[in-house]
Amino acid sequence: MYQLGIVKRHIQRADPTAVARLAAFGVATIHEAMGRVGLMKPYMRPIYPGAQLAGTAVTVLLHPGDNWMMHVAAEQLQPGDVVVAACTADNTDGFFGDLLATSFRARGAKGLVIDGGVRDVKDLSAMGFPVWSKAISAKGTIKATLGSVNVRVICAGAEVNPGDVVVADDDGVVVVPAATAAQVAEAAAAREANEGEKRAKLAAGVLGLDMYNMRPALEKAGLKYVD
Amino acid sequence: MYQLGIVKRHIQRADPTAVARLAAFGVATIHEAMGRVGLMKPYMRPIYPGAQLAGTAVTVLLHPGDNWMMHVAAEQLQPGDVVVAACTADNTDGFFGDLLATSFRARGAKGLVIDGGVRDVKDLSAMGFPVWSKAISAKGTIKATLGSVNVRVICAGAEVNPGDVVVADDDGVVVVPAATAAQVAEAAAAREANEGEKRAKLAAGVLGLDMYNMRPALEKAGLKYVD
Amino acid sequence: MYQLGIVKRHIQRADPTAVARLAAFGVATIHEAMGRVGLMKPYMRPIYPGAQLAGTAVTVLLHPGDNWMMHVAAEQLQPGDVVVAACTADNTDGFFGDLLATSFRARGAKGLVIDGGVRDVKDLSAMGFPVWSKAISAKGTIKATLGSVNVRVICAGAEVNPGDVVVADDDGVVVVPAATAAQVAEAAAAREANEGEKRAKLAAGVLGLDMYNMRPALEKAGLKYVD
Amino acid sequence: MYQLGIVKRHIQRADPTAVARLAAFGVATIHEAMGRVGLMKPYMRPIYPGAQLAGTAVTVLLHPGDNWMMHVAAEQLQPGDVVVAACTADNTDGFFGDLLATSFRARGAKGLVIDGGVRDVKDLSAMGFPVWSKAISAKGTIKATLGSVNVRVICAGAEVNPGDVVVADDDGVVVVPAATAAQVAEAAAAREANEGEKRAKLAAGVLGLDMYNMRPALEKAGLKYVD
Amino acid sequence: MYQLGIVKRHIQRADPTAVARLAAFGVATIHEAMGRVGLMKPYMRPIYPGAQLAGTAVTVLLHPGDNWMMHVAAEQLQPGDVVVAACTADNTDGFFGDLLATSFRARGAKGLVIDGGVRDVKDLSAMGFPVWSKAISAKGTIKATLGSVNVRVICAGAEVNPGDVVVADDDGVVVVPAATAAQVAEAAAAREANEGEKRAKLAAGVLGLDMYNMRPALEKAGLKYVD
Amino acid sequence: MYQLGIVKRHIQRADPTAVARLAAFGVATIHEAMGRVGLMKPYMRPIYPGAQLAGTAVTVLLHPGDNWMMHVAAEQLQPGDVVVAACTADNTDGFFGDLLATSFRARGAKGLVIDGGVRDVKDLSAMGFPVWSKAISAKGTIKATLGSVNVRVICAGAEVNPGDVVVADDDGVVVVPAATAAQVAEAAAAREANEGEKRAKLAAGVLGLDMYNMRPALEKAGLKYVD
Repeated sequence: MYQLGIVKRHIQRADPTAVARLAAFGVATIHEAMGRVGLMKPYMRPIYPGAQLAGTAVTVLLHPGDNWMMHVAAEQLQPGDVVVAACTADNTDGFFGDLLATSFRARGAKGLVIDGGVRDVKDLSAMGFPVWSKAISAKGTIKATLGSVNVRVICAGAEVNPGDVVVADDDGVVVVPAATAAQVAEAAAAREANEGEKRAKLAAGVLGLDMYNMRPALEKAGLKYVD
Repeated sequence: MYQLGIVKRHIQRADPTAVARLAAFGVATIHEAMGRVGLMKPYMRPIYPGAQLAGTAVTVLLHPGDNWMMHVAAEQLQPGDVVVAACTADNTDGFFGDLLATSFRARGAKGLVIDGGVRDVKDLSAMGFPVWSKAISAKGTIKATLGSVNVRVICAGAEVNPGDVVVADDDGVVVVPAATAAQVAEAAAAREANEGEKRAKLAAGVLGLDMYNMRPALEKAGLKYVD
Repeated sequence: MYQLGIVKRHIQRADPTAVARLAAFGVATIHEAMGRVGLMKPYMRPIYPGAQLAGTAVTVLLHPGDNWMMHVAAEQLQPGDVVVAACTADNTDGFFGDLLATSFRARGAKGLVIDGGVRDVKDLSAMGFPVWSKAISAKGTIKATLGSVNVRVICAGAEVNPGDVVVADDDGVVVVPAATAAQVAEAAAAREANEGEKRAKLAAGVLGLDMYNMRPALEKAGLKYVD
Repeated sequence: MYQLGIVKRHIQRADPTAVARLAAFGVATIHEAMGRVGLMKPYMRPIYPGAQLAGTAVTVLLHPGDNWMMHVAAEQLQPGDVVVAACTADNTDGFFGDLLATSFRARGAKGLVIDGGVRDVKDLSAMGFPVWSKAISAKGTIKATLGSVNVRVICAGAEVNPGDVVVADDDGVVVVPAATAAQVAEAAAAREANEGEKRAKLAAGVLGLDMYNMRPALEKAGLKYVD
Repeated sequence: MYQLGIVKRHIQRADPTAVARLAAFGVATIHEAMGRVGLMKPYMRPIYPGAQLAGTAVTVLLHPGDNWMMHVAAEQLQPGDVVVAACTADNTDGFFGDLLATSFRARGAKGLVIDGGVRDVKDLSAMGFPVWSKAISAKGTIKATLGSVNVRVICAGAEVNPGDVVVADDDGVVVVPAATAAQVAEAAAAREANEGEKRAKLAAGVLGLDMYNMRPALEKAGLKYVD
Repeated sequence: MYQLGIVKRHIQRADPTAVARLAAFGVATIHEAMGRVGLMKPYMRPIYPGAQLAGTAVTVLLHPGDNWMMHVAAEQLQPGDVVVAACTADNTDGFFGDLLATSFRARGAKGLVIDGGVRDVKDLSAMGFPVWSKAISAKGTIKATLGSVNVRVICAGAEVNPGDVVVADDDGVVVVPAATAAQVAEAAAAREANEGEKRAKLAAGVLGLDMYNMRPALEKAGLKYVD
């Protein structure tokens, strides 16, 4: 359950070494390494192609049309953080623009993931400040109702706890719990190593059917080849 | 209420000086300067990144799957105009392509805003003819039913009267009534001036909490800082 | 009706000359040349701007969250083919990534059209492997249930038979039945020839109203010009 | 353009006789009688089947998640009014429930049309208080920002001016400008008279092809009958 | 590929005995009996709860906003037919109302399945004329462009050939090819017989885990029970 | 983060007395009593009007198109439980029908809340087995991949922990954490008591403006009354 009106000042951020290791992998690889969980919904898209991000989550809980808590969150940011903003109801208003990006960057933030709208995307792109959002909208917001900072939030269908590692790229956004970050990085590395060899074989014309030895299972399942 | 079968030939276009002034501002700034009204819905997206536009509206009312009135509108265009096309029902067909763009441009039009689909986007992008639309679709349209030109229309949720100023960029589309164009440009300029200073402070690490003096209001609202 | 558990090995591919001729035209032109049929729904979008494709369809029928049949399809590919993947229910999972793209390319495939999700879009873009999809999602899939390869499928609302010509660009995806490919190419060429002249006239300021002789029909329909 | 922070106390309501006449027709008939304009988008649905409504519009402009203006609107209601609520951005929050319905009814209101969410639908159904809305949601709203009452609004894609006639049934919601209400009622009556005779003929097996004399036009358009 | 401008007069309807047998089963059962294919997308909903239908398809291909072909289809109807209407682009207009329903019923039609909008739903419900549609909308349509009657269509993602059996209920719409109707009815009956026994066991508290002997497979897959 | 392949056998269910007290209130009231949190998204709708439910959550995590875990969940049910099923990706397949309902009811379950599709809705309605779902679809599912039972899930945007109280009615679904159930019931009762008096005043014609003393705040915010 969401808690409203609370700012948690001291959070346990994931180990920086693990974050750095995770930063080397794509979202699809990390998602596989985690056992296919932790992904946000695919409506979360980067505001410019090629955007990439890995950092520790500072979470924000917003209300529709109200970005007051974004300013409260700014104070809690440390270098390497990523702001993850959830909203109590679906809303596409532009909660975030270039002024807040300037402030977040000054505090060391690496980017934003928001289950809502964002504006000033031309400026944000020029700044190279990466944002993944549900919408782009020029619509401004008010500052009237308390949400929270650094509570557990549900963002685009994924649970995010303060301090979790957030990795985002052109494929979407994945959340790695702080406690498992090192282990997931390990699994991702193992998987990646593996992929180079597979890619070479496939490029040489070997079929996945043979490389993964799928033919017996397909036959057992009843697959029929006809002319 | 929509009027069908009518072409209004003489419309009162917004003052060119005001249009030129508004062209200098982003959609988000103008929307704020207007008191947060006048925006089209965020599903209206430019066909290429970086598209920008400011001009006076020539409005078109279309029926689903029918672009007859686009040709009628072409004759009413004057240099500096923007075509704003609404539709009597939701429809994603490609009402507009490179031939119409060639015609519109020959008449001096600056671009198109359409609550429907558009096609030939590669050609339009190459021409630098900016379009904001609800969809991209190769599907062609017929020429069978009368709509109107230069009547008031509802386009993507916004009211547009012929002659209004339309400003569009990566953040969306905003409509400024002709009568208030100068005054809105004024307000936008004031706001913008203001923003440079704010940006500098935020970049220097000053928090919005302090710059906007938000702490007393947050405390009064009951915000709690916990460890 | 879909057939499950079947792989058709010998399909009648459209004549390569006709495919080559069709490759010269845009999707909008071909769609018009076919009499305005054969288009997939406009939610099918290329993963990078400027993507272009023309080839013969190898079809795949998938189940939600299961990409087993993609590997079966790889074996059936010949140079010049395009994989067209349909799904038995709406699903945005990432059925396809850079490993499968490597395999498909090694077999001579030109690209993919999928009524589902795709991942590794950065890598696919770097490879120049064009994909039109309904979604981008890092979510992986399992290999558990039989679909089919080279049966007739419904992909994004369009019927695709194995061997049909698939043409795709920034405007969407169109399907040309193998039997009519040459004739459609002919019609597209005729239409295109025609367009150059029209474009020149429109660029010179001639109105579509006059070029297409629309005024009598508009008057008959009751269009009224008012001041 | 929307005006914010304004309550218009004296509005010109449509003539009660015209409203009473319009109340006798279905939404589809009135929409046809108006020349196929004035309809709200089809996502507006009644909260219970069989709901029916005809009255004069008192308009409300809301902000997402804020229902303050609904209370301001209550004071402006007169017997026979219908509240038409628009919102400055798409929002499904429950702006309205049984307490407001009790208040509106006490003031003589006949129902509500809202481009947003509504709650307490079981109670509203039991009260027989008809509501057409975009969503049903238990989510409550705040009272923090000024909108307006009795300004022109865009509700579900339709323009509504205070005093206009709003007619709603299972087919949707149509808006008749106050000034044309009598004339539209006339046209609807003519149309309806006409329909009884048509229905009888069709029930007797006469084909629309013959009754409407469509065969020549179909033949001219090139329709081919094949075996 | 769609054929336009064609009416096929003589179609091979499914055997009436098979239709009658299929009418006894629910859509879910038939869909399972067919091997989980043939379903329309779940956005197709009945206009009143409890609607039920089984008949032979007379297909119609419409254009957005144009219902001309519905009148052409009426002449081709025989007792026991169901009209299945597809559209060349997504459109929610009200293509069908109580007059057409009166005509269709006079010709012996059992109902309508339409990938578009429908109106007069109160009257249709009172008549007991069942319709499955994508939308309800009062918006009327024109009669200007040729589609086809009795060609193969794609309706809500499913292929429908003239003469196929269409079965619809509260769970959706399924299409059974004419040639396999008897065989599918057989399989459905077998399945249904089976279900009675299963239901009794489950009602008596037997777990599906045991009845279907799932425990070994779950264990093999690695399922862990923890406290 | 989701855990896969786990069944938790012993969960801490909310106190039955608190559940019974919560059962007396509507979802809107409980949501307010919780401080406006804990609601599922409004796309979750009951399969029949008037459905009502209050019970303790047994959670299930499914994969798209796979209902294996529903059978595993059945064994964990105790009288008074409600099954809450989440899915690792958006999917509308029919994961649940009358056989599973029979089994769940035999185990004492009160109903189902599922972020996916459901089928056999006619039978479920006849049984009076209440279900809130995202879709109705006849499409069947496979049994191939492990999810989990009684882990924390995100269902329709809300966090649900095993043992939490789930209350659902025509307005939607709300989740009350087990630990706060008694306290929320208390707050709901206080709120409800309050509402009777308010309703009486409003019914007597007192305005909310006066009853809630809103006039000073509206004036301070700058509301202008004009003629």
